[in-house]
Amino acid sequence: MGKVHLLGAGPGDPDLLTLKAARILALADVVIYDRLVNTEVLAFATRAVLIDGGKRQGEQERIQDWINHLLVRYAGEVKTVVRLKCGDPMIFARGAEEWEHLSRHGIEVEIVPGVSSAIAVPSLAGIPPTFRGVAASFAAIAGHRQNLLTVDWSPYARIDTLIILMGVENREYIAESLIRAGRDACQPVAFVENGSTPRECVVESTLGAVAAGSVEVNSPAVFVIGEVVRLRRRLNPAPRSEKETPVAR
Amino acid sequence: MGKVHLLGAGPGDPDLLTLKAARILALADVVIYDRLVNTEVLAFATRAVLIDGGKRQGEQERIQDWINHLLVRYAGEVKTVVRLKCGDPMIFARGAEEWEHLSRHGIEVEIVPGVSSAIAVPSLAGIPPTFRGVAASFAAIAGHRQNLLTVDWSPYARIDTLIILMGVENREYIAESLIRAGRDACQPVAFVENGSTPRECVVESTLGAVAAGSVEVNSPAVFVIGEVVRLRRRLNPAPRSEKETPVAR
Repeated sequence: MGKVHLLGAGPGDPDLLTLKAARILALADVVIYDRLVNTEVLAFATRAVLIDGGKRQGEQERIQDWINHLLVRYAGEVKTVVRLKCGDPMIFARGAEEWEHLSRHGIEVEIVPGVSSAIAVPSLAGIPPTFRGVAASFAAIAGHRQNLLTVDWSPYARIDTLIILMGVENREYIAESLIRAGRDACQPVAFVENGSTPRECVVESTLGAVAAGSVEVNSPAVFVIGEVVRLRRRLNPAPRSEKETPVAR
Repeated sequence: MGKVHLLGAGPGDPDLLTLKAARILALADVVIYDRLVNTEVLAFATRAVLIDGGKRQGEQERIQDWINHLLVRYAGEVKTVVRLKCGDPMIFARGAEEWEHLSRHGIEVEIVPGVSSAIAVPSLAGIPPTFRGVAASFAAIAGHRQNLLTVDWSPYARIDTLIILMGVENREYIAESLIRAGRDACQPVAFVENGSTPRECVVESTLGAVAAGSVEVNSPAVFVIGEVVRLRRRLNPAPRSEKETPVAR
């Protein structure tokens, strides 16, 4: 019986893979990867069969069942199965649900934490989630539809730094909900597109402008809300590429 | 002029260093490390002068000034200076303040994100910060004294999963404050001591018991509050050592 490694690919830059992740990928027989995993990360899996586990909109339950089925099947057939997820495998990625499914089938699971996009992507763009005197805490939430319908926004309206993953599509609704729950519409926000990679691009705005639908953003992006966004001018991060939006706009 | 790398050492297990962190440590001329960084991580810095930047209680401002001074001085003397911090360098670690100080002195800074203890330590112990139907979000806050005095606890009382770093010493005060702000005293909590290492040990209890002062914990530990703590029984993580507290108690 094989073992399934629930493995974090990090935020995009293949150099931010952990030593453990790189070693396990090189040994893997089968890798089932999420849609947004960087192809340069997949290149570490030199001997594996690569399976695109991409979750298309609207048929998520069916695809999740299919992935669960594949994980159990391959664990019965080969030694090293990798379930590769963007960022950290335990954050908004159903990684823990897959872990539970495998445990119920008596399959050994190893968790290999990754660098979380929620923290690393803003930080690399000059927006640290915490900063003494500015933000003592941060919260992270997933911005996809099935999550948003049941959310009570009031605690998120008051937490210092709010980081939203997978929230580009629903950004207007999220911004509007936060303002209605008491978050200041003048608060600065940033969207970091393709964070940690040479295609990184930062869009700065305000919560009110996002709610008004006037902010263009390309998915995938990490959506950050809070006073820490202003630190970008003070920290002045080195650009990751020629194309990157300069800090002073 | 040298460059300063603000580098995350990850949660403890040296195998959770990133490829980039391992490579930069091997090239480093000087490494200024935080007190809790694992010595096995320091062993990667084969050619560097190692400086203990340990922050002792009660004299933090003075030590921070001294570290800032050293970073500027060494950046003027050698090529590769590493400021090595536990977990991720931008979370509760004054990393961003050091970044700002260096930027003001015209010194080039590179951020090397690490695997955050806030996420990885609970996850490896079978407590994923998010889980569909149980927790849609998590928040992280530092539990040291200067932070606690100014905190408004009400949003933290209502966020699904709350993760507290550096909170062992003030656990009674934190638990009491959360209950007073409306968090259910029956809610399960866990302290994960020495997470990700062979010395990992998990103490499970309830928020009420912590507030009553009846829960013994050894520092350092990550303090997790929320229904996700119950997942540990369902996920049944493989023990990291002989000594580890078994899941069923």
